[in-house]
Amino acid sequence: MGSSYADIIESNKKYSENFGDKKNLPVPPIKNIVILTCMDSRLEPLKFAGLNLGDAHIVRNAGGRASDDAIRSLIISYKMLGTNEFYVIHHSDCGMESFTNEDMKSKFEGIKHNTELENIDWLTISDREESVRNDVEKIKTHPLVSDDIQVFGFIYEVKTGKLLEVK
Amino acid sequence: MGSSYADIIESNKKYSENFGDKKNLPVPPIKNIVILTCMDSRLEPLKFAGLNLGDAHIVRNAGGRASDDAIRSLIISYKMLGTNEFYVIHHSDCGMESFTNEDMKSKFEGIKHNTELENIDWLTISDREESVRNDVEKIKTHPLVSDDIQVFGFIYEVKTGKLLEVK
Repeated sequence: MGSSYADIIESNKKYSENFGDKKNLPVPPIKNIVILTCMDSRLEPLKFAGLNLGDAHIVRNAGGRASDDAIRSLIISYKMLGTNEFYVIHHSDCGMESFTNEDMKSKFEGIKHNTELENIDWLTISDREESVRNDVEKIKTHPLVSDDIQVFGFIYEVKTGKLLEVK
Repeated sequence: MGSSYADIIESNKKYSENFGDKKNLPVPPIKNIVILTCMDSRLEPLKFAGLNLGDAHIVRNAGGRASDDAIRSLIISYKMLGTNEFYVIHHSDCGMESFTNEDMKSKFEGIKHNTELENIDWLTISDREESVRNDVEKIKTHPLVSDDIQVFGFIYEVKTGKLLEVK
Protein backbone atom coordinates (compact mmCIF):
# COMPACT_ATOMS: atom_id res chain seq x y z
CA MET A 1 0.00 0.00 0.00
CA GLY A 2 1.07 3.54 -0.61
CA SER A 3 2.13 5.43 2.48
CA SER A 4 -0.91 7.73 2.30
CA TYR A 5 -3.48 5.10 1.34
CA ALA A 6 -4.72 4.25 4.87
CA ASP A 7 -4.87 7.92 5.87
CA ILE A 8 -6.97 8.78 2.82
CA ILE A 9 -9.44 5.96 3.51
CA GLU A 10 -9.73 7.00 7.16
CA SER A 11 -10.05 10.73 6.40
CA ASN A 12 -12.69 10.09 3.77
CA LYS A 13 -14.86 8.28 6.35
CA LYS A 14 -14.92 11.42 8.45
CA TYR A 15 -15.58 13.57 5.38
CA SER A 16 -18.60 11.51 4.36
CA GLU A 17 -19.97 11.45 7.91
CA ASN A 18 -20.14 15.24 7.78
CA PHE A 19 -21.22 15.54 4.17
CA GLY A 20 -24.26 17.70 4.94
CA ASP A 21 -26.03 19.53 2.14
CA LYS A 22 -23.28 19.03 -0.41
CA LYS A 23 -25.42 16.15 -1.68
CA ASN A 24 -27.85 18.72 -3.09
CA LEU A 25 -25.40 20.52 -5.38
CA PRO A 26 -26.56 20.65 -9.01
CA VAL A 27 -24.61 19.02 -11.85
CA PRO A 28 -24.07 22.20 -13.95
CA PRO A 29 -21.66 24.70 -12.40
CA ILE A 30 -23.71 27.35 -10.57
CA LYS A 31 -21.65 30.28 -11.91
CA ASN A 32 -21.14 28.85 -15.42
CA ILE A 33 -17.38 29.10 -15.03
CA VAL A 34 -14.47 26.87 -15.99
CA ILE A 35 -11.03 27.39 -14.51
CA LEU A 36 -8.15 25.81 -16.43
CA THR A 37 -5.05 25.81 -14.28
CA CYS A 38 -1.93 23.90 -13.27
CA MET A 39 -1.82 20.69 -11.19
CA ASP A 40 0.65 22.46 -8.85
CA SER A 41 0.07 21.48 -5.21
CA ARG A 42 0.18 25.08 -3.99
CA LEU A 43 -2.86 26.23 -5.98
CA GLU A 44 -6.42 26.29 -4.59
CA PRO A 45 -8.41 27.56 -7.58
CA LEU A 46 -11.81 27.89 -5.93
CA LYS A 47 -10.39 29.83 -3.01
CA PHE A 48 -8.05 32.15 -4.88
CA ALA A 49 -10.98 33.10 -7.15
CA GLY A 50 -13.44 33.48 -4.27
CA LEU A 51 -15.68 30.68 -5.52
CA ASN A 52 -17.61 28.02 -3.65
CA LEU A 53 -17.93 24.30 -4.22
CA GLY A 54 -20.44 23.84 -7.03
CA ASP A 55 -19.64 27.11 -8.80
CA ALA A 56 -17.15 26.01 -11.44
CA HIS A 57 -15.62 23.20 -13.43
CA ILE A 58 -11.94 22.87 -12.63
CA VAL A 59 -9.62 21.50 -15.30
CA ARG A 60 -6.00 20.96 -14.27
CA ASN A 61 -2.87 19.56 -15.91
CA ALA A 62 0.86 20.18 -15.90
CA GLY A 63 1.14 23.90 -16.63
CA GLY A 64 -2.59 24.60 -16.97
CA ARG A 65 -2.05 24.30 -20.70
CA ALA A 66 -4.75 24.36 -23.38
CA SER A 67 -3.85 20.86 -24.53
CA ASP A 68 -6.20 19.01 -26.85
CA ASP A 69 -7.52 17.17 -23.81
CA ALA A 70 -8.13 20.37 -21.86
CA ILE A 71 -10.04 21.68 -24.86
CA ARG A 72 -12.04 18.41 -24.97
CA SER A 73 -13.05 19.17 -21.37
CA LEU A 74 -13.89 22.82 -22.12
CA ILE A 75 -16.10 21.88 -25.07
CA ILE A 76 -17.97 19.26 -23.02
CA SER A 77 -18.35 21.81 -20.24
CA TYR A 78 -20.01 24.51 -22.34
CA LYS A 79 -21.87 22.24 -24.73
CA MET A 80 -23.26 19.80 -22.19
CA LEU A 81 -23.33 21.82 -18.99
CA GLY A 82 -23.79 25.40 -20.08
CA THR A 83 -20.62 27.16 -18.96
CA ASN A 84 -19.75 30.38 -20.76
CA GLU A 85 -16.66 31.87 -19.09
CA PHE A 86 -13.24 30.22 -19.25
CA TYR A 87 -10.36 31.37 -17.05
CA VAL A 88 -6.88 30.20 -18.14
CA ILE A 89 -4.57 30.57 -15.14
CA HIS A 90 -0.85 29.76 -15.28
CA HIS A 91 1.41 30.65 -12.35
CA SER A 92 4.78 31.92 -11.22
CA ASP A 93 7.51 29.46 -10.17
CA CYS A 94 5.93 26.76 -12.33
CA GLY A 95 7.83 23.50 -12.72
CA MET A 96 7.05 23.67 -16.44
CA GLU A 97 9.51 26.57 -16.74
CA SER A 98 12.37 24.47 -15.36
CA PHE A 99 12.90 22.00 -18.19
CA THR A 100 12.59 21.53 -21.94
CA ASN A 101 11.39 18.75 -24.22
CA GLU A 102 15.06 17.84 -24.74
CA ASP A 103 15.65 17.53 -20.97
CA MET A 104 12.69 15.21 -20.67
CA LYS A 105 13.80 13.16 -23.64
CA SER A 106 17.21 12.65 -22.04
CA LYS A 107 15.61 11.28 -18.88
CA PHE A 108 14.18 8.35 -20.80
CA GLU A 109 17.10 7.75 -23.14
CA GLY A 110 18.11 4.14 -23.49
CA ILE A 111 15.47 2.91 -21.06
CA LYS A 112 12.52 2.46 -23.33
CA HIS A 113 13.37 3.49 -26.83
CA ASN A 114 10.37 4.56 -28.83
CA THR A 115 10.36 7.36 -31.35
CA GLU A 116 6.77 8.35 -30.69
CA LEU A 117 7.30 8.59 -26.94
CA GLU A 118 10.60 10.40 -27.36
CA ASN A 119 8.84 13.07 -29.37
CA ILE A 120 6.05 13.83 -26.89
CA ASP A 121 5.48 17.56 -26.57
CA TRP A 122 5.58 18.12 -22.81
CA LEU A 123 4.10 21.63 -23.21
CA THR A 124 6.83 23.28 -21.20
CA ILE A 125 6.80 27.04 -20.66
CA SER A 126 9.57 29.46 -21.55
CA ASP A 127 7.65 32.74 -21.19
CA ARG A 128 4.65 32.60 -18.89
CA GLU A 129 2.77 35.58 -20.30
CA GLU A 130 3.23 34.22 -23.78
CA SER A 131 2.02 30.78 -22.71
CA VAL A 132 -1.16 32.30 -21.29
CA ARG A 133 -1.74 34.38 -24.43
CA ASN A 134 -1.12 31.41 -26.71
CA ASP A 135 -3.47 29.20 -24.75
CA VAL A 136 -6.25 31.81 -24.62
CA GLU A 137 -5.87 32.28 -28.37
CA LYS A 138 -5.87 28.53 -29.02
CA ILE A 139 -9.15 28.17 -27.14
CA LYS A 140 -10.79 31.23 -28.69
CA THR A 141 -9.95 30.15 -32.22
CA HIS A 142 -10.75 26.47 -31.79
CA PRO A 143 -13.38 25.56 -34.40
CA LEU A 144 -15.62 23.84 -31.84
CA VAL A 145 -15.50 26.63 -29.24
CA SER A 146 -18.42 29.00 -29.61
CA ASP A 147 -17.71 32.72 -30.11
CA ASP A 148 -20.11 33.37 -27.23
CA ILE A 149 -17.59 32.04 -24.72
CA GLN A 150 -15.50 34.63 -22.92
CA VAL A 151 -11.91 33.55 -22.33
CA PHE A 152 -9.70 35.35 -19.81
CA GLY A 153 -5.99 34.83 -19.09
CA PHE A 154 -4.23 35.23 -15.76
CA ILE A 155 -1.01 34.48 -13.95
CA TYR A 156 -1.32 33.45 -10.31
CA GLU A 157 1.59 34.54 -8.12
CA VAL A 158 2.49 31.73 -5.72
CA LYS A 159 4.31 34.07 -3.34
CA THR A 160 1.49 36.61 -2.96
CA GLY A 161 -1.72 34.80 -3.95
CA LYS A 162 -2.45 37.51 -6.51
CA LEU A 163 -4.09 36.95 -9.89
CA LEU A 164 -2.51 39.16 -12.56
CA GLU A 165 -4.48 39.51 -15.76
CA VAL A 166 -2.67 38.86 -19.04
CA LYS A 167 -4.07 40.75 -22.02
CA MET B 1 -16.84 41.22 -19.22
CA GLY B 2 -18.08 37.88 -17.95
CA SER B 3 -20.64 38.12 -15.22
CA SER B 4 -18.23 36.70 -12.62
CA TYR B 5 -15.12 38.57 -13.73
CA ALA B 6 -15.42 41.54 -11.35
CA ASP B 7 -16.29 39.30 -8.39
CA ILE B 8 -13.25 37.13 -9.02
CA ILE B 9 -10.91 40.13 -9.18
CA GLU B 10 -12.40 41.55 -5.98
CA SER B 11 -12.38 38.23 -4.11
CA ASN B 12 -8.80 37.57 -5.12
CA LYS B 13 -7.69 40.86 -3.55
CA LYS B 14 -9.02 39.69 -0.21
CA TYR B 15 -7.47 36.27 -0.69
CA SER B 16 -4.02 37.74 -1.33
CA GLU B 17 -4.33 40.13 1.62
CA ASN B 18 -4.73 37.12 3.89
CA PHE B 19 -2.25 34.88 2.11
CA GLY B 20 -0.25 34.09 5.25
CA ASP B 21 2.29 31.27 5.25
CA LYS B 22 1.02 29.71 2.04
CA LYS B 23 3.92 31.54 0.39
CA ASN B 24 6.29 29.05 2.03
CA LEU B 25 4.82 25.89 0.52
CA PRO B 26 7.42 23.77 -1.32
CA VAL B 27 7.17 23.04 -5.05
CA PRO B 28 7.10 19.21 -4.78
CA PRO B 29 3.90 17.79 -3.27
CA ILE B 30 4.52 17.13 0.43
CA LYS B 31 2.82 13.72 0.41
CA ASN B 32 4.11 12.65 -3.04
CA ILE B 33 0.56 12.09 -4.25
CA VAL B 34 -1.25 12.82 -7.50
CA ILE B 35 -5.03 12.76 -7.68
CA LEU B 36 -6.50 12.39 -11.17
CA THR B 37 -10.20 13.19 -11.08
CA CYS B 38 -13.10 14.82 -12.89
CA MET B 39 -13.60 18.56 -13.49
CA ASP B 40 -17.09 18.19 -11.91
CA SER B 41 -17.99 21.24 -9.82
CA ARG B 42 -19.18 19.14 -6.86
CA LEU B 43 -15.79 17.54 -6.20
CA GLU B 44 -13.26 18.86 -3.70
CA PRO B 45 -10.39 16.38 -4.07
CA LEU B 46 -8.14 17.65 -1.29
CA LYS B 47 -10.97 17.67 1.23
CA PHE B 48 -12.59 14.36 0.36
CA ALA B 49 -9.16 12.71 0.67
CA GLY B 50 -8.27 14.52 3.90
CA LEU B 51 -5.32 16.31 2.34
CA ASN B 52 -3.99 19.81 2.83
CA LEU B 53 -2.89 22.45 0.37
CA GLY B 54 0.63 21.51 -0.72
CA ASP B 55 0.18 17.75 -0.28
CA ALA B 56 -0.73 16.64 -3.80
CA HIS B 57 -0.77 17.40 -7.49
CA ILE B 58 -4.34 17.58 -8.74
CA VAL B 59 -5.02 16.68 -12.38
CA ARG B 60 -8.59 17.16 -13.58
CA ASN B 61 -10.44 16.77 -16.86
CA ALA B 62 -13.87 15.72 -18.12
CA GLY B 63 -14.36 12.33 -16.48
CA GLY B 64 -11.03 12.14 -14.68
CA ARG B 65 -9.83 10.04 -17.59
CA ALA B 66 -6.29 8.82 -18.18
CA SER B 67 -6.05 10.72 -21.44
CA ASP B 68 -2.66 11.13 -23.09
CA ASP B 69 -2.53 14.61 -21.59
CA ALA B 70 -3.33 13.38 -18.09
CA ILE B 71 -0.53 10.85 -18.49
CA ARG B 72 1.79 13.66 -19.66
CA SER B 73 1.02 15.38 -16.36
CA LEU B 74 1.52 12.21 -14.29
CA ILE B 75 4.90 11.52 -15.88
CA ILE B 76 6.09 15.07 -15.28
CA SER B 77 4.82 14.80 -11.71
CA TYR B 78 6.78 11.71 -10.78
CA LYS B 79 9.82 12.33 -12.94
CA MET B 80 10.34 15.99 -12.11
CA LEU B 81 8.70 16.34 -8.71
CA GLY B 82 9.03 12.95 -7.09
CA THR B 83 5.44 11.77 -6.64
CA ASN B 84 4.96 8.01 -6.30
CA GLU B 85 1.25 7.37 -5.62
CA PHE B 86 -1.45 8.04 -8.20
CA TYR B 87 -5.15 8.00 -7.29
CA VAL B 88 -7.58 7.72 -10.23
CA ILE B 89 -10.99 8.88 -9.00
CA HIS B 90 -14.11 8.85 -11.19
CA HIS B 91 -17.51 9.56 -9.65
CA SER B 92 -21.22 8.73 -9.60
CA ASP B 93 -23.70 10.87 -11.56
CA CYS B 94 -20.93 11.93 -13.96
CA GLY B 95 -21.95 13.95 -17.01
CA MET B 96 -19.66 11.71 -19.05
CA GLU B 97 -22.16 8.87 -18.58
CA SER B 98 -24.96 10.91 -20.15
CA PHE B 99 -23.85 11.05 -23.78
CA THR B 100 -21.87 9.20 -26.44
CA ASN B 101 -19.39 10.20 -29.12
CA GLU B 102 -22.26 10.03 -31.61
CA ASP B 103 -24.37 12.45 -29.52
CA MET B 104 -21.52 14.90 -29.43
CA LYS B 105 -20.89 14.56 -33.15
CA SER B 106 -24.54 15.38 -33.86
CA LYS B 107 -24.27 18.60 -31.85
CA PHE B 108 -21.72 19.97 -34.29
CA GLU B 109 -23.20 18.59 -37.48
CA GLY B 110 -23.40 21.03 -40.32
CA ILE B 111 -21.91 23.86 -38.30
CA LYS B 112 -18.25 23.31 -38.77
CA HIS B 113 -17.63 20.29 -40.90
CA ASN B 114 -14.28 18.71 -40.30
CA THR B 115 -13.60 14.99 -40.29
CA GLU B 116 -10.83 15.19 -37.70
CA LEU B 117 -12.98 17.16 -35.28
CA GLU B 118 -16.01 14.97 -35.88
CA ASN B 119 -13.99 11.94 -34.87
CA ILE B 120 -12.70 13.26 -31.54
CA ASP B 121 -12.92 10.62 -28.85
CA TRP B 122 -14.73 12.42 -26.03
CA LEU B 123 -13.80 9.67 -23.54
CA THR B 124 -17.35 9.18 -22.38
CA ILE B 125 -18.13 6.55 -19.73
CA SER B 126 -20.61 3.69 -20.08
CA ASP B 127 -19.55 1.63 -17.04
CA ARG B 128 -17.88 3.60 -14.29
CA GLU B 129 -16.06 0.70 -12.63
CA GLU B 130 -14.73 -0.40 -15.97
CA SER B 131 -13.59 3.13 -16.81
CA VAL B 132 -11.62 3.28 -13.56
CA ARG B 133 -10.06 -0.14 -14.15
CA ASN B 134 -9.17 0.72 -17.75
CA ASP B 135 -7.58 3.99 -16.74
CA VAL B 136 -5.59 2.46 -13.88
CA GLU B 137 -4.36 -0.22 -16.27
CA LYS B 138 -3.50 2.33 -18.97
CA ILE B 139 -1.36 4.26 -16.50
CA LYS B 140 0.32 1.19 -15.00
CA THR B 141 1.26 -0.21 -18.39
CA HIS B 142 2.35 3.05 -19.97
CA PRO B 143 5.95 2.59 -21.11
CA LEU B 144 7.11 5.83 -19.47
CA VAL B 145 5.44 5.21 -16.10
CA SER B 146 7.82 3.57 -13.64
CA ASP B 147 6.82 0.25 -12.07
CA ASP B 148 7.61 1.83 -8.70
CA ILE B 149 4.50 4.00 -8.90
CA GLN B 150 1.44 2.72 -7.04
CA VAL B 151 -1.82 3.37 -8.85
CA PHE B 152 -5.15 3.13 -7.04
CA GLY B 153 -8.67 3.38 -8.46
CA PHE B 154 -11.75 4.80 -6.75
CA ILE B 155 -15.27 5.98 -7.38
CA TYR B 156 -16.42 9.02 -5.42
CA GLU B 157 -20.12 9.05 -4.56
CA VAL B 158 -21.51 12.55 -5.03
CA LYS B 159 -24.55 11.86 -2.82
CA THR B 160 -22.58 10.53 0.20
CA GLY B 161 -19.04 11.87 -0.16
CA LYS B 162 -17.68 8.31 0.07
CA LEU B 163 -14.69 6.96 -1.83
CA LEU B 164 -15.28 3.36 -2.96
CA GLU B 165 -12.20 1.48 -4.06
CA VAL B 166 -12.30 -0.27 -7.45
CA LYS B 167 -10.07 -3.32 -7.69
